[in-house]
Amino acid sequence: MNEFASMHPKEARMLMREGRWDKPTAGMAAGYAQANLVILPQSLAFDFLLFCQRNPKPCPVLDVTEPGSPVPALVAPDADLRTDLPRYRVYRKGVLAEEVTRIDHLWREDMVAFLLGCSFTFEQALLDNGIPVRHIEQHCNVPMYVTNLDCAKAGRFSGPMVVSMRPIPHDQVVRAVQVTSRFPAVHGAPVHIGDPRQIGIADVNTPDFGDPVPIYPGEVPVFWACGVTPQAVAMRCKPELMITHAPGHMFITDQRDAQYGVL
Amino acid sequence: MNEFASMHPKEARMLMREGRWDKPTAGMAAGYAQANLVILPQSLAFDFLLFCQRNPKPCPVLDVTEPGSPVPALVAPDADLRTDLPRYRVYRKGVLAEEVTRIDHLWREDMVAFLLGCSFTFEQALLDNGIPVRHIEQHCNVPMYVTNLDCAKAGRFSGPMVVSMRPIPHDQVVRAVQVTSRFPAVHGAPVHIGDPRQIGIADVNTPDFGDPVPIYPGEVPVFWACGVTPQAVAMRCKPELMITHAPGHMFITDQRDAQYGVL
Repeated sequence: MNEFASMHPKEARMLMREGRWDKPTAGMAAGYAQANLVILPQSLAFDFLLFCQRNPKPCPVLDVTEPGSPVPALVAPDADLRTDLPRYRVYRKGVLAEEVTRIDHLWREDMVAFLLGCSFTFEQALLDNGIPVRHIEQHCNVPMYVTNLDCAKAGRFSGPMVVSMRPIPHDQVVRAVQVTSRFPAVHGAPVHIGDPRQIGIADVNTPDFGDPVPIYPGEVPVFWACGVTPQAVAMRCKPELMITHAPGHMFITDQRDAQYGVL
Repeated sequence: MNEFASMHPKEARMLMREGRWDKPTAGMAAGYAQANLVILPQSLAFDFLLFCQRNPKPCPVLDVTEPGSPVPALVAPDADLRTDLPRYRVYRKGVLAEEVTRIDHLWREDMVAFLLGCSFTFEQALLDNGIPVRHIEQHCNVPMYVTNLDCAKAGRFSGPMVVSMRPIPHDQVVRAVQVTSRFPAVHGAPVHIGDPRQIGIADVNTPDFGDPVPIYPGEVPVFWACGVTPQAVAMRCKPELMITHAPGHMFITDQRDAQYGVL
């Protein structure tokens, strides 16, 4: 393990807080769960939490801060979400306004931060079970697609589910379902196995986000609900201010991946 | 199966809607999940939902209505929560004001209804696995205790966890953990096994709610988080109006028990 992989989450977060790390977090603090960040004004918080509750596969909630508090008390009680991620995106009225490395100057007393589970945890579980993860092999981003699967609506939030795809050897598909089912807090079991057209994906080689990956003979495309969904849905209602992590620049929690296994 | 056990949930709810059933729901619509009901004003809804999210074992959320809507769209889209339970309790400023068989006259546009998982589902799973459930054998209520385990606080909501106890033969304790772990939406795995004093219960024969049950030689007391917790916690903040199901008079959903198994 390199020095970043063997770091404790707290050390990794201190690097970011001190402005000494603004790169992606993949591979840092190995064994600890990383999380997606969505920050919204309190006026949207109930609807958004309800949306997450109704759509736990794309929006698995790991922690929600008290309004005005930047401290994720459940998953990292000494962290500060305003400074402890390497890179943030600031959206105004649904449009990307800037990318920054800290947000303390933007913080307001009416803000609520949501931390949502991230696929890194279940990908590690797949790897531990000898199941290949193509985009990791290829050193690229996971391919992501907008589907024709509607999320359950909640107040002002609605929209289609975004999924990620991993090609799985046909004789490991059942095991991949079992392995990821153990981790509902990080997207859990797949939402679809096989023909992409059945969930409204016209061309699996042309993802809407991320990079295409090859599907080899004998492999089956397997689709999991993706953490991009809540951001995409929140954007549709054009909140006056919304802050998220920059893609791949996640929040590193104090919780071990294994702690999110339900059994 | 008797006529009540073999009813579809919709038929059972119609009996209640028409005022023809005001008794407990145990044993009705066998195989379908029943739920606890908590109705609060919208001003408390975010804090309460957050409390549930932070305390999923005592407060497993199955559905939350849109503010003003009495329809649980996820679990029973043609039901009406104002009329489809056999019996309700109305609390004003934290004090029981009345017990009624419908609440349409009390309904307001700012109300939000929460349906929370109920132990009936995991008890059936225990019975299906050959594990005895003492209070069912004894035709009494499950014994419940206030513990020294603090729930995670959320906004105005805080308080101790209430647990229920079932004596389990020592050689079936591990299986009982496995079986109930599969159902996190209905309280899930136990929170404690063995010595009641370790969680602040002075005398296991004197429950705070429900009825005492005997623990036979060779049995171990096993404690699960209890759905009374959210009601008890909500009461502590003395909401101007709160409505719940009357104990044992649950809401019957259209969802099969098995659908809540995570694997």
